[in-house]
Amino acid sequence: MNQERLSRLLEEVAAGTLSSEAALEQLRGLPFEDMGFAKIDFHRSLRKGYPETIFCQGKTPEQVAAIALRMAEAGETVLGTRCGPDMFQTVHDTVPRAVYHAAARAFTVMAEEGPLSQRYVAVVCAGTSDIPVAEEAAVTCLAMGVRVERVYDVGVAGIHRLLEQRERISGAVAAVVCAGMEGALPSVVAGLTSSLVIAVPTSVGYGASFNGIAALLGMLNSCATGLTVVNIDNGFGAAVAACTILKLVEQTTG
Amino acid sequence: MNQERLSRLLEEVAAGTLSSEAALEQLRGLPFEDMGFAKIDFHRSLRKGYPETIFCQGKTPEQVAAIALRMAEAGETVLGTRCGPDMFQTVHDTVPRAVYHAAARAFTVMAEEGPLSQRYVAVVCAGTSDIPVAEEAAVTCLAMGVRVERVYDVGVAGIHRLLEQRERISGAVAAVVCAGMEGALPSVVAGLTSSLVIAVPTSVGYGASFNGIAALLGMLNSCATGLTVVNIDNGFGAAVAACTILKLVEQTTG
Amino acid sequence: MNQERLSRLLEEVAAGTLSSEAALEQLRGLPFEDMGFAKIDFHRSLRKGYPETIFCQGKTPEQVAAIALRMAEAGETVLGTRCGPDMFQTVHDTVPRAVYHAAARAFTVMAEEGPLSQRYVAVVCAGTSDIPVAEEAAVTCLAMGVRVERVYDVGVAGIHRLLEQRERISGAVAAVVCAGMEGALPSVVAGLTSSLVIAVPTSVGYGASFNGIAALLGMLNSCATGLTVVNIDNGFGAAVAACTILKLVEQTTG
Amino acid sequence: MNQERLSRLLEEVAAGTLSSEAALEQLRGLPFEDMGFAKIDFHRSLRKGYPETIFCQGKTPEQVAAIALRMAEAGETVLGTRCGPDMFQTVHDTVPRAVYHAAARAFTVMAEEGPLSQRYVAVVCAGTSDIPVAEEAAVTCLAMGVRVERVYDVGVAGIHRLLEQRERISGAVAAVVCAGMEGALPSVVAGLTSSLVIAVPTSVGYGASFNGIAALLGMLNSCATGLTVVNIDNGFGAAVAACTILKLVEQTTG
Amino acid sequence: MNQERLSRLLEEVAAGTLSSEAALEQLRGLPFEDMGFAKIDFHRSLRKGYPETIFCQGKTPEQVAAIALRMAEAGETVLGTRCGPDMFQTVHDTVPRAVYHAAARAFTVMAEEGPLSQRYVAVVCAGTSDIPVAEEAAVTCLAMGVRVERVYDVGVAGIHRLLEQRERISGAVAAVVCAGMEGALPSVVAGLTSSLVIAVPTSVGYGASFNGIAALLGMLNSCATGLTVVNIDNGFGAAVAACTILKLVEQTTG
Amino acid sequence: MNQERLSRLLEEVAAGTLSSEAALEQLRGLPFEDMGFAKIDFHRSLRKGYPETIFCQGKTPEQVAAIALRMAEAGETVLGTRCGPDMFQTVHDTVPRAVYHAAARAFTVMAEEGPLSQRYVAVVCAGTSDIPVAEEAAVTCLAMGVRVERVYDVGVAGIHRLLEQRERISGAVAAVVCAGMEGALPSVVAGLTSSLVIAVPTSVGYGASFNGIAALLGMLNSCATGLTVVNIDNGFGAAVAACTILKLVEQTTG
Amino acid sequence: MNQERLSRLLEEVAAGTLSSEAALEQLRGLPFEDMGFAKIDFHRSLRKGYPETIFCQGKTPEQVAAIALRMAEAGETVLGTRCGPDMFQTVHDTVPRAVYHAAARAFTVMAEEGPLSQRYVAVVCAGTSDIPVAEEAAVTCLAMGVRVERVYDVGVAGIHRLLEQRERISGAVAAVVCAGMEGALPSVVAGLTSSLVIAVPTSVGYGASFNGIAALLGMLNSCATGLTVVNIDNGFGAAVAACTILKLVEQTTG
Amino acid sequence: MNQERLSRLLEEVAAGTLSSEAALEQLRGLPFEDMGFAKIDFHRSLRKGYPETIFCQGKTPEQVAAIALRMAEAGETVLGTRCGPDMFQTVHDTVPRAVYHAAARAFTVMAEEGPLSQRYVAVVCAGTSDIPVAEEAAVTCLAMGVRVERVYDVGVAGIHRLLEQRERISGAVAAVVCAGMEGALPSVVAGLTSSLVIAVPTSVGYGASFNGIAALLGMLNSCATGLTVVNIDNGFGAAVAACTILKLVEQTTG
Repeated sequence: MNQERLSRLLEEVAAGTLSSEAALEQLRGLPFEDMGFAKIDFHRSLRKGYPETIFCQGKTPEQVAAIALRMAEAGETVLGTRCGPDMFQTVHDTVPRAVYHAAARAFTVMAEEGPLSQRYVAVVCAGTSDIPVAEEAAVTCLAMGVRVERVYDVGVAGIHRLLEQRERISGAVAAVVCAGMEGALPSVVAGLTSSLVIAVPTSVGYGASFNGIAALLGMLNSCATGLTVVNIDNGFGAAVAACTILKLVEQTTG
Repeated sequence: MNQERLSRLLEEVAAGTLSSEAALEQLRGLPFEDMGFAKIDFHRSLRKGYPETIFCQGKTPEQVAAIALRMAEAGETVLGTRCGPDMFQTVHDTVPRAVYHAAARAFTVMAEEGPLSQRYVAVVCAGTSDIPVAEEAAVTCLAMGVRVERVYDVGVAGIHRLLEQRERISGAVAAVVCAGMEGALPSVVAGLTSSLVIAVPTSVGYGASFNGIAALLGMLNSCATGLTVVNIDNGFGAAVAACTILKLVEQTTG
Repeated sequence: MNQERLSRLLEEVAAGTLSSEAALEQLRGLPFEDMGFAKIDFHRSLRKGYPETIFCQGKTPEQVAAIALRMAEAGETVLGTRCGPDMFQTVHDTVPRAVYHAAARAFTVMAEEGPLSQRYVAVVCAGTSDIPVAEEAAVTCLAMGVRVERVYDVGVAGIHRLLEQRERISGAVAAVVCAGMEGALPSVVAGLTSSLVIAVPTSVGYGASFNGIAALLGMLNSCATGLTVVNIDNGFGAAVAACTILKLVEQTTG
Repeated sequence: MNQERLSRLLEEVAAGTLSSEAALEQLRGLPFEDMGFAKIDFHRSLRKGYPETIFCQGKTPEQVAAIALRMAEAGETVLGTRCGPDMFQTVHDTVPRAVYHAAARAFTVMAEEGPLSQRYVAVVCAGTSDIPVAEEAAVTCLAMGVRVERVYDVGVAGIHRLLEQRERISGAVAAVVCAGMEGALPSVVAGLTSSLVIAVPTSVGYGASFNGIAALLGMLNSCATGLTVVNIDNGFGAAVAACTILKLVEQTTG
Repeated sequence: MNQERLSRLLEEVAAGTLSSEAALEQLRGLPFEDMGFAKIDFHRSLRKGYPETIFCQGKTPEQVAAIALRMAEAGETVLGTRCGPDMFQTVHDTVPRAVYHAAARAFTVMAEEGPLSQRYVAVVCAGTSDIPVAEEAAVTCLAMGVRVERVYDVGVAGIHRLLEQRERISGAVAAVVCAGMEGALPSVVAGLTSSLVIAVPTSVGYGASFNGIAALLGMLNSCATGLTVVNIDNGFGAAVAACTILKLVEQTTG
Repeated sequence: MNQERLSRLLEEVAAGTLSSEAALEQLRGLPFEDMGFAKIDFHRSLRKGYPETIFCQGKTPEQVAAIALRMAEAGETVLGTRCGPDMFQTVHDTVPRAVYHAAARAFTVMAEEGPLSQRYVAVVCAGTSDIPVAEEAAVTCLAMGVRVERVYDVGVAGIHRLLEQRERISGAVAAVVCAGMEGALPSVVAGLTSSLVIAVPTSVGYGASFNGIAALLGMLNSCATGLTVVNIDNGFGAAVAACTILKLVEQTTG
Repeated sequence: MNQERLSRLLEEVAAGTLSSEAALEQLRGLPFEDMGFAKIDFHRSLRKGYPETIFCQGKTPEQVAAIALRMAEAGETVLGTRCGPDMFQTVHDTVPRAVYHAAARAFTVMAEEGPLSQRYVAVVCAGTSDIPVAEEAAVTCLAMGVRVERVYDVGVAGIHRLLEQRERISGAVAAVVCAGMEGALPSVVAGLTSSLVIAVPTSVGYGASFNGIAALLGMLNSCATGLTVVNIDNGFGAAVAACTILKLVEQTTG
Repeated sequence: MNQERLSRLLEEVAAGTLSSEAALEQLRGLPFEDMGFAKIDFHRSLRKGYPETIFCQGKTPEQVAAIALRMAEAGETVLGTRCGPDMFQTVHDTVPRAVYHAAARAFTVMAEEGPLSQRYVAVVCAGTSDIPVAEEAAVTCLAMGVRVERVYDVGVAGIHRLLEQRERISGAVAAVVCAGMEGALPSVVAGLTSSLVIAVPTSVGYGASFNGIAALLGMLNSCATGLTVVNIDNGFGAAVAACTILKLVEQTTG
């Protein structure tokens, strides 16, 4: 029916009974969203440089490898998260350029290795057990062409270690802060820096940590205002948020 | 940019350098979703007879009255759910045609009172405490022009009362079955009828009923296959689902 | 005691002291439910074509194989869900006709392969990780003689892929929509089609997805009215509900 | 810099231009936490323009009024959140300059009304019931000197209303998106804009919405990467995060 | 259809072409459950003496009064639980014979006051806050004609008070033990008596008692084997279970 | 100090300055519980015939075998629950008389095989997946010398199978009813028998069954009054409760 | 029976056929626990100075007043917690000596006002909203004769305020630290003092604070080892624990 | 004291006996956090004897071994908790002095084996399944130089076993009491001793024990005042708390 209406309109234009301006106006008058979702693709192309990401968990190695191959052949940077070493073997057999980041349980296929951003994102974590999540964040930043400063093993129990790293954190555009157990680290970091802190609860802990729920709740209820939170163990998502801010700043300043 | 492209295309049609058929083809070729969400509106207009609904809870009486007035003036049937008697007073002062359904805590402003559907939806509930939810379902059906058979107070504790109503339930296109506590009634009803049972857990109960969670879980885990479930106390949503099926049947059969 | 009463009544009829009409009337007067549950079996036989289903999880391979054999010998179509490849091996050794559907982790033993229904059910899923649940739904439909259109990998992140499949979904009598994580897909699909959407939360996700609870809650609270929900990962149950509607429509229209 | 200051001070002592007592006094006069948490105060003074905030809930009207008075007298901009009209009356009696924002259940005492920022934050909400949370965000932005664009009542059920506002949202440095029920709006908005989306689950809903838990989980599990989340109903915190980004951009670009 | 079959069968008996014995046999051959649910009513009449119960919460005073009147006129003993004093006023106006038990928030209309049972049920509770639940149990027993021994305020903190009552508890056929907070009392009582202990968690407590969940979980996980549990605050249900055992013993022994 | 007091008292008696009656009175006056917990052992010895039970889960095979040996040597009947076949191997090597019950995952070492009780306990379960829990209950009864009637695979989906077993269930002193998923079976059984129903939720199910929580909540909220509940999968505890009632009846009647 | 045995023993002592030493030995040989629970009372009397406590919530004003009167007349110090001002009015009418502590929602009736302990307990809280809980702890200490240092409003957001109070906290035998929201304060305090920190989660907060659950989980998962936790809002319990340690120290050192 | 030091330093600068450069260097050389968190390091050095602890779970064997080696070489006592036998093998290969405590799943590297404390901590547990947690507590005490009395397998079901150990528990400075299931043991122990009871819920149990949640809630809601609680299975933390009290007492008394 929509099509009939369009058809008729075009015929009137062809017949000269409707000016192209009037037709355009009428088209504009069509349910607005006709033009709507088209935009999506345009602004997608704008954010070029964002890697295509494969969440590997729950997929077969063959599926992951096939998707990675297709994307890599299309010239995209590919990032595969939650990818164990066995699964990566299959990926590597299919896409020999793929590089594995064991600590992050992630792999990348870089489209082109341009220079990293001037500004950087700080990736902070409380203990060695939180490193896999922090590394997922760090690798994601790098795959997005963003420089990273890693500040690891600075839990609140030995606060002086954190204080020694204060400068490096404060210099970042945004800080991705990963912590399990009671998840207090992001609150403390937020007190040390004026940039945005993105908190990542990790599933590190036992008993009443409930696989990260305690940390998640702690972060959501933080008395440090301005803290925002992502899903448990979601280093990837936090990194994308941080890089979005960094790119906004770099775009604005040229 | 999209608009420029459209503009150019229309000018070509006007100039005769592009036939209206070719233009139509090109329009079809535009990012597919251009036409996409337009459909929404069309099929919306197709399901005329669906009431515009106001979920009153959390709104001020004035907001509700204003929305109801606007919709009623547009010739729509209006249904207001979760509306207490005090709030309705304000609505009534603004829209005198509005009718209150105390048991359902709902009001309606009917656009036109055509005949009800031939087929009907059965609205079943376990105890007198479940009646507000059941009535919300019943009033919703009526606002959609659908006939309702009410089968109330047929809890599984006195199963013969349910069995006496078996015919009326089986004759329905779909049954909306409301129950609190352990929520076993929908399972039993599903054993008595071949039509679809839509289960509505109610917040009736105490202690470990957790305001309807026990009933919700019971229904989700029902061993009676083919049962589907809506939110706790959501008589409205279940009724819309049931009426959707009824209208599909009536449309198909002319 | 009941039997004595029946006995006496029959003797009176035999003796001619009670007419068969009066006896029938008296029988009717017996506690109503005497006749009650009898209906169950009759309407069961009406819905012939429904497969006998074995929920394999928690049973031994031997138990599953034995049940499948008994049912298959009785001429029933058999559907086994949640059946791993190892377990199926045992089933296959016992019932060589059994066919395995690896993606669905299900097997079927078809009683007779009649033509599929004319109308169809759409089975939609968000990502590749949801496919096992979607396939369980699809295989269930097929085992019930219902035609299926599979619309896979159309998550809301890349909404244009979904829009391209709009026609196929809208053409369905009902849509079974499977999604994990935040479970938003069924809401979006419900905006694109006028037929009933049956939402299946899947356990896909991590962290605060809590094995499908986030998706389940999202679907139960959907602002798209008319959505109904089944248990987490319950592709089978959703398919039975969808087929129930389809068969209702086909029965009604002859 | 701190060290320079120390250096200079010590040199003056060495030079005899400063007595050791006076030097000690000056050292004492430095923010006490000087060598350790020193940065805190400095960066606090850097983020001048940030309001002093009173979370009123759980305090007595007298406590709130006293704190507001003390802060206002110190020349600070004061923001009071979760403040009912009765409580505000007490505040107003004490600080007559205080202004109440009924829809936000907040009050402000502005230190000086300079011009608002050039760039803006978009505050988006799904339904009228979400407005109190959205307004808390908007009032917070204004108290921080940040321009706001309000985009209200654009729930995903009527997606064309959202699409009409696309430009205004995309033009923002960051979008604070408030939604209750299944909380899908932030995911959809994130698909329409390249700036950061900060999601605020609201306690709007009933039954299995569990006072905002469903929305919170939906947002944490969003398939739209880069989304970050704050506590349920925490419009204030989301606004602070958004303004932090905006000020970072404005600072960087001069 | 069933009826046709019955009709034909009776006509054959009337015609003498079928003996009443053969007819009886055929009737027996009908789907077995034909005779099935009839039993329910018989055994219901067997347990005469059981009160008809009205769960008042969630009903209007008028509904409660009307139901109570109908039952009382039918000569039944009536028990109304969860009935506040205001609601009872309406009941009393309608059924002047109704007696209110304030501590139990319950009322009774006794059909006939026969002698109480010889054996008794012990109703035990931990603290004065648990008394309403304990009294609901006690009043229920009395309404069922069962003698009660009340053992109140014997919490485990002052265990000697419990020990002093040891004999009275041990002499009971069954003990209904009500406790909130950590719910340890039933475990201790179970160590003191050889009769069955029915544990009733109460919603007494605060914080992590979660309205009785802590007590409920404590009782379900009791290391005292043989303990069984009912819903939070369900004094009524526990009393019915205890009286069922008592009546079984009294029936068996004549 | 207590001892000093006792010592002095005894010396006074010896010295004749205190009569033995007065001394007894004084002893009685000592904190009552002095005599208190002594009783425990006496009534323990009364319930001879109860097996000594080992909850094997979480113990090493060696620990289980050692405990079993010590008890068996003391002439006790031993019951080991939650014992896998591998663990039993170790037990059997140590106590060759031990008998394994594979379906129950339990073993017994019978002290003496006397005749079973005349009355019996009915052990009922819904599906084949519930059998391990039901068998744990059955084996426990047998270890306690109590006769059992097993009524298995009578889920509410095929209610006629349950009705066919009505007589056997009604004849029991108590019924242990095991069910997973929505846990509706105990409610239905409670409608068919006048004896006490002890409900055992099982962890059978998936998704929103939450390992038996749905069944547990369903049973706690059952509208069938008089139902009592034990922990998830606790067939042992339910059996002990049932046997306690049976032994009470048999003791009373001689 | 036990008594007979005692009786006989005493008679033998009186008769001189048994020495008092031998009798004592035999008494020791009685089931050991005979002497067991006696200890309870003795050590109770040892900890004289502990107040008798009434948890007022859930009791009627009359019950509270009556209990308070009975205890006060027995010369005990009485502490009533969770007592609103209206309830206290009734208490005061009955026990005029009773003193109300409004901020703590508690009252005391002091037996005798001796000097407070030399050492002290620090009661620390994060914000003004936590004061009621902190005051309950402080009043409890005072009722136990223990000196208190209050350190209030030292939340981690303004950490210098806490640091200024470092000395006073470190000087305490134990610190009761109350905090709501994410509950991080006890962890930080534990880093500043070598004495035991007893953490009290408060129900202060909103949204995902879940009435103190977030704070409770944060404290249970604290990376500051040696922290122990009490129930949400349980200032009383924490104070008793702290005073127990203080009294142990004072006892040991004379 | 710190100030004195500063004072002296400044005077030396004024006196010319110290160059300003050297003074600056000295200031730098002070523990950096000097004025702020300075205390931390000082009191750390004060609590010498506390082991450096490695929470091994979630770390690789290599990481654990490397950390252990570094600490051991620094002359510290090292305690590794949650360390399986395989992981220990790697530790042992690296630090041959390391000793494994299999029952505790922990290892220690003792700096110097001085005499244990005179006073002791009682470590109590309910059943053999709780021993791993109890042993973690015991080994922690020993690593801290604190004497331990183990009181195992004294569950409340056989309360006389507990009573027999009464003296040993009462003699302790503090008791660490570990229990799973309903977690009632700490409450009972608290009734037997006047010293502080630190309750450790264990994850022992099944079904509604929810891996220790039931025990945790039971302990948090204990009616035995003065009980404090640590995380599920956190034997280590409870031991540190108990040793903190013991050292406080020993320090005070010299």
